[in-house]
Amino acid sequence: MNTDLPTSDRKAFYEQIRELNMIPLWESLSTLVPHQPNGPCVPALWKWRDVLPYIEQAGTLITAEEAVRRVLVLENPALPGYASVTQSLYAGLQLILPGEVAPAHRHVQSALRFIVHGRGAYTAVDGERTTMMPGDFIITPSWTWHDHGNDGIDGRSEPVVWLDGLDIPMIRFFDAGFEEKSTAMSQRVTRPEGNALARYGHNLLPVDYQPSSPTSPIFSYPYDRTREVLERLYRDGDVDAWHGVKLRYVNPATGGWPMPTLATFMQYLPAGFSGKPFRSTDGAVYSVVEGTGRAVIDGQSFEFGPKDHFVVPSWKTFTLHANDDAVLFSFSDRPVQTALNILREEKLDA
Amino acid sequence: MNTDLPTSDRKAFYEQIRELNMIPLWESLSTLVPHQPNGPCVPALWKWRDVLPYIEQAGTLITAEEAVRRVLVLENPALPGYASVTQSLYAGLQLILPGEVAPAHRHVQSALRFIVHGRGAYTAVDGERTTMMPGDFIITPSWTWHDHGNDGIDGRSEPVVWLDGLDIPMIRFFDAGFEEKSTAMSQRVTRPEGNALARYGHNLLPVDYQPSSPTSPIFSYPYDRTREVLERLYRDGDVDAWHGVKLRYVNPATGGWPMPTLATFMQYLPAGFSGKPFRSTDGAVYSVVEGTGRAVIDGQSFEFGPKDHFVVPSWKTFTLHANDDAVLFSFSDRPVQTALNILREEKLDA
Amino acid sequence: MNTDLPTSDRKAFYEQIRELNMIPLWESLSTLVPHQPNGPCVPALWKWRDVLPYIEQAGTLITAEEAVRRVLVLENPALPGYASVTQSLYAGLQLILPGEVAPAHRHVQSALRFIVHGRGAYTAVDGERTTMMPGDFIITPSWTWHDHGNDGIDGRSEPVVWLDGLDIPMIRFFDAGFEEKSTAMSQRVTRPEGNALARYGHNLLPVDYQPSSPTSPIFSYPYDRTREVLERLYRDGDVDAWHGVKLRYVNPATGGWPMPTLATFMQYLPAGFSGKPFRSTDGAVYSVVEGTGRAVIDGQSFEFGPKDHFVVPSWKTFTLHANDDAVLFSFSDRPVQTALNILREEKLDA
Amino acid sequence: MNTDLPTSDRKAFYEQIRELNMIPLWESLSTLVPHQPNGPCVPALWKWRDVLPYIEQAGTLITAEEAVRRVLVLENPALPGYASVTQSLYAGLQLILPGEVAPAHRHVQSALRFIVHGRGAYTAVDGERTTMMPGDFIITPSWTWHDHGNDGIDGRSEPVVWLDGLDIPMIRFFDAGFEEKSTAMSQRVTRPEGNALARYGHNLLPVDYQPSSPTSPIFSYPYDRTREVLERLYRDGDVDAWHGVKLRYVNPATGGWPMPTLATFMQYLPAGFSGKPFRSTDGAVYSVVEGTGRAVIDGQSFEFGPKDHFVVPSWKTFTLHANDDAVLFSFSDRPVQTALNILREEKLDA
Repeated sequence: MNTDLPTSDRKAFYEQIRELNMIPLWESLSTLVPHQPNGPCVPALWKWRDVLPYIEQAGTLITAEEAVRRVLVLENPALPGYASVTQSLYAGLQLILPGEVAPAHRHVQSALRFIVHGRGAYTAVDGERTTMMPGDFIITPSWTWHDHGNDGIDGRSEPVVWLDGLDIPMIRFFDAGFEEKSTAMSQRVTRPEGNALARYGHNLLPVDYQPSSPTSPIFSYPYDRTREVLERLYRDGDVDAWHGVKLRYVNPATGGWPMPTLATFMQYLPAGFSGKPFRSTDGAVYSVVEGTGRAVIDGQSFEFGPKDHFVVPSWKTFTLHANDDAVLFSFSDRPVQTALNILREEKLDA
Repeated sequence: MNTDLPTSDRKAFYEQIRELNMIPLWESLSTLVPHQPNGPCVPALWKWRDVLPYIEQAGTLITAEEAVRRVLVLENPALPGYASVTQSLYAGLQLILPGEVAPAHRHVQSALRFIVHGRGAYTAVDGERTTMMPGDFIITPSWTWHDHGNDGIDGRSEPVVWLDGLDIPMIRFFDAGFEEKSTAMSQRVTRPEGNALARYGHNLLPVDYQPSSPTSPIFSYPYDRTREVLERLYRDGDVDAWHGVKLRYVNPATGGWPMPTLATFMQYLPAGFSGKPFRSTDGAVYSVVEGTGRAVIDGQSFEFGPKDHFVVPSWKTFTLHANDDAVLFSFSDRPVQTALNILREEKLDA
Repeated sequence: MNTDLPTSDRKAFYEQIRELNMIPLWESLSTLVPHQPNGPCVPALWKWRDVLPYIEQAGTLITAEEAVRRVLVLENPALPGYASVTQSLYAGLQLILPGEVAPAHRHVQSALRFIVHGRGAYTAVDGERTTMMPGDFIITPSWTWHDHGNDGIDGRSEPVVWLDGLDIPMIRFFDAGFEEKSTAMSQRVTRPEGNALARYGHNLLPVDYQPSSPTSPIFSYPYDRTREVLERLYRDGDVDAWHGVKLRYVNPATGGWPMPTLATFMQYLPAGFSGKPFRSTDGAVYSVVEGTGRAVIDGQSFEFGPKDHFVVPSWKTFTLHANDDAVLFSFSDRPVQTALNILREEKLDA
Repeated sequence: MNTDLPTSDRKAFYEQIRELNMIPLWESLSTLVPHQPNGPCVPALWKWRDVLPYIEQAGTLITAEEAVRRVLVLENPALPGYASVTQSLYAGLQLILPGEVAPAHRHVQSALRFIVHGRGAYTAVDGERTTMMPGDFIITPSWTWHDHGNDGIDGRSEPVVWLDGLDIPMIRFFDAGFEEKSTAMSQRVTRPEGNALARYGHNLLPVDYQPSSPTSPIFSYPYDRTREVLERLYRDGDVDAWHGVKLRYVNPATGGWPMPTLATFMQYLPAGFSGKPFRSTDGAVYSVVEGTGRAVIDGQSFEFGPKDHFVVPSWKTFTLHANDDAVLFSFSDRPVQTALNILREEKLDA
């Protein structure tokens, strides 16, 4: 900055106003109001083969009672100490061993569970249990009692790992978090498994039903159903040059997002797909369900395979490529950016 | 935490996963998902008599050309270096001297101007100028060209100071900021002053009008009109035991907030008013328009008078008291908390 | 219709199914699903000088006690016996003499009062009275207690005539009408006159206000304010080649229509204005407030002056012309057509 | 009416104003603003065994070319000549014989097809065909090209009969009907059958999808899926004492009604169900899919069996009773009554 004011005078002034908790805007305007998104986040990949041994170790070293929620948090390399995978999103990998139970609590934070590995755990929301199968997308709505357990399925029991996606950084940012623990270990089951999906998930709603919150009344979106749709649309030729076949999960009572703070997506990239470059202000976390391929993010290449996770920061140009048929789950803060009227996205040509 | 795992083993494990950009949730769960809002912000007061000398000094030491926007940012004492008055809000006091012009630009950030001191500056938005008078609330909508100047009024010219309120921290947090500078110093004036208020501000709308954004088409809410309403409602007895006569500014095309990220309020506390305690998850910044009184925030007492500013953090219980008739402007992030479905507020009894 | 079936056989068949309450669609398809709107309504004009003597006569011949609501209903000439001015709208001219009172009742039907003649009557809605002045637009919301009276103003008393606009035919068509009479003659006044306009009518709303119905919380839109806006926009050059300066009244709590069933408009035609042709599927009833001019509707010319009323049926092309500065109030069923997604309108070039 | 005015004078007055197209409100107020719904409609039942012979006769006597749409309209006995089953609803039974084609057209009227009898006809909407099976609910959205045909299925061909439900009386009432005939016999098929249901019907939506109209993008709601949900909810105990298991069809892009003018419902009455009395301002047309039972409407009893149709007028109290497991489809004008804010319904105790 070219100025007639001697640096020393300016400094003295800055120190004086500092006493009053004031700072000069002109020294930081271009940082505060950037020309385009310039946040600190970097792309990153967590390979399943690297992560799995530590998840297993966490299972042996630390008991469920001790850990309550035995989760390894995926932290953006550029945000050490923030427990955030982007500035607004939290992601972690949670392990639950056969026979374990995570006691009931509720919190303002909205959570998604995306099942990565193993079968037979359950989560209970609002009096209904759902058994977790790989690829299922499950919701824990804001301020709703929930607990987890791992009872096994078909007489077999195995460790189960899921991706936790939460809006923890948002709630922290807006400083609006509340949490409550239940006195009961698990909540009472009041409805048979599958009731919510039957009630709300087939383009029909109970005649007197009025939504009591913006969160989807369906809390489990099973993978087999989603997978079928992706393939069907692929066969019908509904393939986008940027996204392949990309769908967003929907709250059937509103047509909106499943949760007010988190958008979730599932996409299918046919073998050999090589997507055009895309960027968006909502950075996203990806969980690979099937297949292998490559994400090129801001010039960096990340090879991915099943159960790998990666993060694409805001406004970084990226492309997706599939070696064999690939299925990717992802989530972002898109509903909030839409509510704030600040979402921008761009499909680029090359 | 009581555990059988030797601290040293655990530490080793933590260091190993740290290499993979992972951290153990169980060490920080209660911080990440707090029992109730526990953000770092503290209440603070900026007395006009303390602030004014520095504003004046900024006017003499630093030219408008140099400073572009000559603003002293009000920074929360607990957030040094963040240019934030709460975690989500930015507030600053801007000075414009007679004859100065601040060149046109636009940005994703939504801005409000609340006129604190002096008459005769103008702001131009979307081809229409509005002359600023103390107590006026003026909007600069997201991604709209705007510029300011100080031409004086009625042949007189004086320094003008206004409160800038912006969503800068939110846009930074969601990493969605864009900014563009105009090649022209000022934008071309295409509509006479007052046209927008006439068009949209009298419970009538042009028959073919369709809103093109969620931001209010009125960009100036003059104080004289607002003041009249406050007094009228006071005379009619519409006084709330917590808030006095408290009104929210409205986008007349939707009935919603004037901007998608910022709520604005004006309230009247009759002489002798002593409000009951209140708390809310949307912290707020106050600008005192008239009168003297006291805000007791989280047990701390702050005496206020005209042109003083103070901040009430999220979920801190506070009460308002007026010595003589007081008028307070305030703003918060309430529209966002409502969109996220996380707003909580509580009227307490004692 | 060319057919091999002997007419006599067909007739026999038709008679047989008639017994079972069935009719053959193929005999009436083109009528039931017309190529374009083909309703029976015709344009019509009611000149004040013709109507006034009968209004006065109704005042002398029939007491208020007897008539309760002393109204001459404007009936579309093509719909005798339907008490309808278009198929969906009701319009009538109501007279209230000095000292008279029309007792309180409420009904599902939404009503508008547009004051045509005389000063000093009042209507009371929801515990608040409003004094009626020519040109004022006043709402009686659905299922809200209301009563009228004529107490005079400034010590003077005169007969008052207003236009009643209601959705009576719609409520009859959907067969959803309910009505209740109060045991009290007038309702108790609980709020001072003008309170609702102060509360809701200045781009501000009480901070805790939540609309309890889709009807505007403002129930009086005074003419002086509306008139000022029209002139201001005319001076600013906001004149449409079809409509002049045309505004729609707005519910300030939503930006939508004042009532869910009725749209209301006010428009200004500067002296010499000769509008281009327009048509719309929502037929409308006009009340002339000021000025003289001509409406050419479906090829027929209607000269209008102050206090005249005319009706433009659905999809009839019409133009408006002003001799001297003219102000026209109008209402239609536009909100319903919009909700049904069937509204069409067309600005024609010649 | 007790009055001092000689009857003869009054009559003369009425005749004079009649000349000016005016009538006295006070002679008809209580009819126009009734104490409660008092429309002319009566309940009625159309037994399949009575209706079928005439449908078959219509098939032999009248060719498809001649009839275009070979439909027997169900007319309310109290509305002869109106082609209406209630004041606002149209219902008809349409027959299409093997090999026939009904040429493409489009109209403002929204239509539903509910398949009553036979398999293997198709309807094509917006470039996609859907094969009709009994119990399927199919939409023809407003102003969308559509055509029908009967090609058979699995090598077999049979006459197909469906219930047509339209908003014809509403569009006539608001006088907003437009219609256009295609020059092509059938529209070009551009998407494989089932594509729309795959795209929009599984709680997922294409990521870039934006609804272009309020009508559901799913145009076929297959019976097998609906039937499964009804039974599942019955097994789960979700049985209402008035309605049994009653669901409304939903537009998955909004959570609202499938069409802006028509609500559609499907309900399951377990064998032996005897419902409590209910009334609602939206009269409804019922089509019996399975089972036998009894509807008691306004004191009249109607025995029903498969493929029978009956109509319940506005605000008539009725109860439903099932001998064996019964499934009933129904439709009404509920979306419009909700938009007008006039819907009332009442669950009575005995």
